[in-house]
Amino acid sequence: MFKFEILKTDESTGARLGRMTTAHGVVETPAFMPVATHATVKSMTSDEIRDMGYNLIIANAYHLYLRPGHKVIENLGGLHKFMSWDRTITTDSGGYQVLSLAQTRKIKDDGVLFRSHLDGSEHFFTPEKCIEIQESLGVDIMMCLDECPPYPSAKDYMEKSVELTTKWAKLCKDSKRRTDNALFGIVQGGVYEDLRERSALSLMEIGFDGYALGGLGIGEDPDRTYEITESTLGHLPTDKPRYLMGLGKPEDIVTAVSMGVDMFDCVIPTRNARNGTLFTSEGKLVIKNAQFAEDVGPIDEGCECYTCRTFTRAYLRHLYLAKETLVLRLLTLHNLHFYAELMKDIRQSIESGDFPNYLSRVKSIGGI
Amino acid sequence: MFKFEILKTDESTGARLGRMTTAHGVVETPAFMPVATHATVKSMTSDEIRDMGYNLIIANAYHLYLRPGHKVIENLGGLHKFMSWDRTITTDSGGYQVLSLAQTRKIKDDGVLFRSHLDGSEHFFTPEKCIEIQESLGVDIMMCLDECPPYPSAKDYMEKSVELTTKWAKLCKDSKRRTDNALFGIVQGGVYEDLRERSALSLMEIGFDGYALGGLGIGEDPDRTYEITESTLGHLPTDKPRYLMGLGKPEDIVTAVSMGVDMFDCVIPTRNARNGTLFTSEGKLVIKNAQFAEDVGPIDEGCECYTCRTFTRAYLRHLYLAKETLVLRLLTLHNLHFYAELMKDIRQSIESGDFPNYLSRVKSIGGI
Repeated sequence: MFKFEILKTDESTGARLGRMTTAHGVVETPAFMPVATHATVKSMTSDEIRDMGYNLIIANAYHLYLRPGHKVIENLGGLHKFMSWDRTITTDSGGYQVLSLAQTRKIKDDGVLFRSHLDGSEHFFTPEKCIEIQESLGVDIMMCLDECPPYPSAKDYMEKSVELTTKWAKLCKDSKRRTDNALFGIVQGGVYEDLRERSALSLMEIGFDGYALGGLGIGEDPDRTYEITESTLGHLPTDKPRYLMGLGKPEDIVTAVSMGVDMFDCVIPTRNARNGTLFTSEGKLVIKNAQFAEDVGPIDEGCECYTCRTFTRAYLRHLYLAKETLVLRLLTLHNLHFYAELMKDIRQSIESGDFPNYLSRVKSIGGI
Repeated sequence: MFKFEILKTDESTGARLGRMTTAHGVVETPAFMPVATHATVKSMTSDEIRDMGYNLIIANAYHLYLRPGHKVIENLGGLHKFMSWDRTITTDSGGYQVLSLAQTRKIKDDGVLFRSHLDGSEHFFTPEKCIEIQESLGVDIMMCLDECPPYPSAKDYMEKSVELTTKWAKLCKDSKRRTDNALFGIVQGGVYEDLRERSALSLMEIGFDGYALGGLGIGEDPDRTYEITESTLGHLPTDKPRYLMGLGKPEDIVTAVSMGVDMFDCVIPTRNARNGTLFTSEGKLVIKNAQFAEDVGPIDEGCECYTCRTFTRAYLRHLYLAKETLVLRLLTLHNLHFYAELMKDIRQSIESGDFPNYLSRVKSIGGI
C-alpha cells in the first residue's frame, strides 16, 4: 500500500505539509531520510534512529545486491527484519552507484554491464533486475533505474540519456510485481530545463507513485540547482510526493521545501559527524579545534540529544583526537538529532503558518 | 576512603567473595575491570558499561597524561566527570606503557626518561609524578610506578628490577597526598618465585591498600603463570584485595579466582570483539565465518544482551564484512556482557558453595 495526502500548503511559498502511508507506517512530510547504504545508518542502531523520531530511511539496492546479496536478505525475511527496522524503507536503485563506483561499466540499451567495486565480478543491471532486487529486499519505496550523467554533460548526450532513463522507467514499472510498495520515477536532464521538462512529462505519462529529482548537486552552481529544482517541480503533479535526491544541507532543505519538495536524503549529517563537523543552532562547529580543549559546554546549548545531555565538547574533542570510535556514534547521533529537529520545526512552521519566517531564520545562520 | 571486606571464602578452593568500598561506591569481588585506556571503553558509552552491571573500570595514567593531559582533566573536574562515569575508577600507573610504547626510554634510578609515542616529546616519569597524575585524575585506586621487564629476563637483571620497583613503590606511597583514594603496590619478579616472594614481602613492609601481580602473561608458559600466581598469592595478606594485571581469558579468570585473586583487567573481551571473535556459552564464535551468512540465530542462544536480543548472526556478519563501525559496539557489548555474567556467576557460585563445580564447567568449554 502507498498513500500520499497533502495536509496543508503554505500560503506564500510552495511548502507542503503531507502524510505518506506505507505498509510500514506513517511518515510526516517534509521528511529527511537518514542514509543506510549497507543496511545500517553508519554507527547507529535502528532503535537509535527510531528514537530520534525518524520513520523513514534509505538503503541502497546496488550495495545490498553485491553484499550480502538481495536473495540472502530475502531468505532472512527481508530488509526490515534483517536490520531490525520496522518502519518505512526507501531504496535507491543503485543507478548512481553503478556509474560512480563500479570498476568498468558499459551502458547499453537494456542495462548496465559493470564490474563490482568489491571483487571485480561482472554483473548486468537491467531495469527488471533492479526491480527484482528491490522487491526481494521488500522495501516500501523503490526507485527506477536511471542514468545519472556527470556534470557537465553535453546537451546531445543528456538528451539521449533522458530517453534511456525514460525507457528504463517504463520497463521498471512493467516489471513491478508486488502491490504493497511504491515506485518512484527519477527526473533527469542535467541543467537543461527543457530536457528536465521532457523527462518529467514522459515519466508522468508512464505514471508513478512519486517523482524524484536526480542528477542535482553534482557540481553545478548552487543557484542553478535551485532554479532547475523549481522549474522541474512546476511540471510535476502536486498530489504526488517529490523527492530531491542526495541534496541536504539544512539551507538546501528549507529552500527546497519552500519550492514544494517533500523528501530528502543526504550523507552530510552522518559524514560530517565522522569528520568532526557538527551542526548547531549557531552554525557549524569543528570539534577538533583547540578552543574546545577545556570547554565544559555541550556541542549545542539548546540541544537535547543524548550526546549533548551527557558529554562536554572537551571530552568529545579528546575522543576525536584519540581516534576513539565512540566519538563517531556520539557525533552522528547529534547531527541526526539536529536534522530530526530541523524537519519537525519545518513541519510545525508550515502547520502554524510561520514557515516563511522559519525559512529566513535558517538562512540567516551562516554556512549551514 | 577505601575498604575491603571478605564476605566468604570458598571451602575447597582459595576463591573469595568480597566487597570493596571506594569514594565512588561499592564493588563486589571477584571483579573484572573493562579497559578504558583513553577514558573510554572502546566504542562504548559509560552508561552502557554501567547498565551491564560494571561498577569498576580501569583507565591509563600514561595515556591520559600525554593526551589530553592530567591537568586538563583535573581542570574539567576529574576523570569521573570527564567521561561521565560516576563509579569506581582504577588507573594503571603507566609503567608498562612507558616501557612498551614510548619511543626511546632510559630507566634511571629515580624514574624513566622517555619520548612520547604520539609526538616524540620528551618526558620524565618519576614515582612522585606518577602519583601526582593519578591524584589529578581523581581516581579511586592508583597503582605504583613499576618496572615490568620483558619475558624472558635474566635473573640478575630481574633482581635489580625488583629492587627498583620496591624503591619506587616507597616513593609513591610517600608522595600520596589525597586520603580519598587507595594505592596498590605491584609485585614483580618475573618467573622467579624467590624474587616474587621478596617483592611481595618488601611491598607489604611498606604497606599498601591492595597488591597487584604484574609482569605475568607476557610470554611465559601458561602453567608457569598459574604457578607463579599461586605461590605469590601465598605471601600476600589475605585481608587485602589482589589484582592480577592484564590477564583475563575466562578460563584464566576462574582459575585465578580459585587461587584467591579478586580483581582482573584485560583487553581480550573488547579487542576480540573488534576482531569479530565472540564469547559464547559453547565456546568462541568467529562472526565472519561463511557458516553464519544466513544464520538467523543470535550470537549466543541464552544471552540477553541487546545485541543478541536484537540482531542475527547473519546481520552482524554482514556489518563485519562491510566494515561498518556499528558492529564494533554491538560485538563489544556482547563480549562485555558475557564477562559481566561470568563474574556474576563466579560470585554467586562462591556464595552458594558451588564454585568448584562452576570452575570445572568453565574449564570444560574448549578454547576460552
